[in-house]
Amino acid sequence: MSKQLTSEQKVDEYETLLEIGLELAGTLDLHQVLTLALEKAEEFCHAESSSIWEVDEEHRELFFRLVRGKGAVELEALRIPLDQGIVGSVASSGVAEIVHDVKADPRWTGEPREGFETRSILTVPLIARGKVVGVLQLLNPTDRDGFAEDDLRRMRLFAGPLAHALANARLYAQQKDLFLDTVTALAEAIEKRDPYTGGHVHRVVAYSVLLGMEIGLERDELESVRLAATLHDVGKIGVPDRILGKPGRLDDEEFRVMQRHAADGAEIVSNIRSLRHLLPGVRSHHERMDGGGYPDGLSGDALQRTPRIIGVADTYDAMTTDRPYRQGLSADQAAAEIERCSGSQFCPDVAAAFRRIYLRGEFDLAHGEALLESLSEQLQRE
Amino acid sequence: MSKQLTSEQKVDEYETLLEIGLELAGTLDLHQVLTLALEKAEEFCHAESSSIWEVDEEHRELFFRLVRGKGAVELEALRIPLDQGIVGSVASSGVAEIVHDVKADPRWTGEPREGFETRSILTVPLIARGKVVGVLQLLNPTDRDGFAEDDLRRMRLFAGPLAHALANARLYAQQKDLFLDTVTALAEAIEKRDPYTGGHVHRVVAYSVLLGMEIGLERDELESVRLAATLHDVGKIGVPDRILGKPGRLDDEEFRVMQRHAADGAEIVSNIRSLRHLLPGVRSHHERMDGGGYPDGLSGDALQRTPRIIGVADTYDAMTTDRPYRQGLSADQAAAEIERCSGSQFCPDVAAAFRRIYLRGEFDLAHGEALLESLSEQLQRE
Repeated sequence: MSKQLTSEQKVDEYETLLEIGLELAGTLDLHQVLTLALEKAEEFCHAESSSIWEVDEEHRELFFRLVRGKGAVELEALRIPLDQGIVGSVASSGVAEIVHDVKADPRWTGEPREGFETRSILTVPLIARGKVVGVLQLLNPTDRDGFAEDDLRRMRLFAGPLAHALANARLYAQQKDLFLDTVTALAEAIEKRDPYTGGHVHRVVAYSVLLGMEIGLERDELESVRLAATLHDVGKIGVPDRILGKPGRLDDEEFRVMQRHAADGAEIVSNIRSLRHLLPGVRSHHERMDGGGYPDGLSGDALQRTPRIIGVADTYDAMTTDRPYRQGLSADQAAAEIERCSGSQFCPDVAAAFRRIYLRGEFDLAHGEALLESLSEQLQRE
Repeated sequence: MSKQLTSEQKVDEYETLLEIGLELAGTLDLHQVLTLALEKAEEFCHAESSSIWEVDEEHRELFFRLVRGKGAVELEALRIPLDQGIVGSVASSGVAEIVHDVKADPRWTGEPREGFETRSILTVPLIARGKVVGVLQLLNPTDRDGFAEDDLRRMRLFAGPLAHALANARLYAQQKDLFLDTVTALAEAIEKRDPYTGGHVHRVVAYSVLLGMEIGLERDELESVRLAATLHDVGKIGVPDRILGKPGRLDDEEFRVMQRHAADGAEIVSNIRSLRHLLPGVRSHHERMDGGGYPDGLSGDALQRTPRIIGVADTYDAMTTDRPYRQGLSADQAAAEIERCSGSQFCPDVAAAFRRIYLRGEFDLAHGEALLESLSEQLQRE
């Protein structure tokens, strides 16, 4: 059935494959791997639409990772059991196949997209480290009636580098998640010693990324802001219970002890080699633009962007939270206070960003959490 | 100069390359990538010895990652400035080259290995994401006088998948390091609230891996033991200062509060999705084989291996450390105590492993730290 390729054709094909393999291996960004893979697969086989499904072993399901072509968006949330449909069947058997007459196939579960008609399907398992990690599917050749044996052969070759790139990107993303989850869990556990600030770290992280996003930070810097905000109060581990838990205002001596948390937090973070870039955010989040802050009395340009951002987020949360000796301010009162102290305590740019978000009615935990979630998905992609 | 390949030869060559590319992409284990790469490179070009150098951007140096061939071990610690020697020159220029008469080359810095004579050198830069990440070097063809243009061409092709695999493995290793460094820094910061246990976590980690290694745990389980030991006392974050810092023995009520740290620690760890496997080690490190421990009174088979190991490590350290109200035991006394309580408090297998290490004179911090270090290198390799 398959036509015999000449050696020259094979050389061309292999050169293309080697090049694609290099491109796929050139990133651990999951999204980039997937996008690139579908683009190349469609190009390679002239297909109308394509998709990659990933195996979720825990739930014994397949879920769409990425779809290209008409009606793609409708499919994003689709999940199917590991043994259902044509994709499920290929994922279970580990054997690639072509289905020419889809509607006659007993495994066919119906058209998932409105206005799209599936005629011919080519489905290839993605196997890495001896396991099926996903499935690549191409729908409807653009220039022929159905896929041919030759398409199948090429997609089998193509599946190798793709499967490995996918598996590597997934492992990397898992390791990044693990790191962020662990820092968050430990930082929040440390915060819990303070009986008056429940959820403070989480809110400061959310507010800080809202501000960072509004200012237009690049992804990397936004990630640093997020991490520095998560760690900004870890130095409170060194503040004694009697000061943390004092129901009244702190006296001068107690306040001096409390202030040590900024430098102590930086000291802890400095033990983590690859997190040195977070030091300014942790050490200087209580500095003021006019030099009246602590621990170093930095002012103006000496005060970096991350602590300026965390400073506004931290103060807003402190102002709007009740303390035993005073009630928290309303959001409007706190917003007015940030505006009033723009240029003296706060960086005018950050205060202006705060004002814009606040006036849109978006400076709250819900908006921050939504942003954090979309950020987590993006940050997995590096 | 280079002979023209036939299409059939090219097909063969590309097939080999595609296969090697898949093998290299099939792991994020740095050591596996390097070993595989040198094996294939020597096979591909019939070379007597080969090495991979990696760029250390921070120090502007090249260091040996792996050497194969005669006298390889002598070279392991070699580091050279980024602009010195033939490897340095290729790393700087990013251009592959062959040196036929090594001794006549002004960049030649002399034979680094005793009893090895370098005649011909083929050096290829490893370029990933637009940067030179390392250099691959082949020495002395086994079947000819010198390397030829054709070897150079092939090694250039080979350098692509290798460079990417190397860069990916390095990124993954960095991410794993970052995670371990961060967990350690935060766990040690939490421990510092206890004024009487300075360095306890670090010692328990070291002792636990000594025991785990002696018992013959697989690498994965050993890594779990290490992490669980690092986190075993994080629950102490919930113990008030007055109890942690009490200079005398705790009364019953204080002891009950102190005991909560095991369950509290497990609660914190349970917030980290991918670390659920560490829960037994954290929650149950104060259980006893006879069921007399806490928090759950587990006994026998219900008590898993990790908490059994941490239990011995933790108790040994507690016994040999001074407290305000008692002096620590000597190592011999503590060892006798572990033997005496084998089967009642301690798992007999772990106690026996302890005894073997102790009798060899190796149950101490120095031996534990050496093991941790070699483990860190190995653990980077996954």
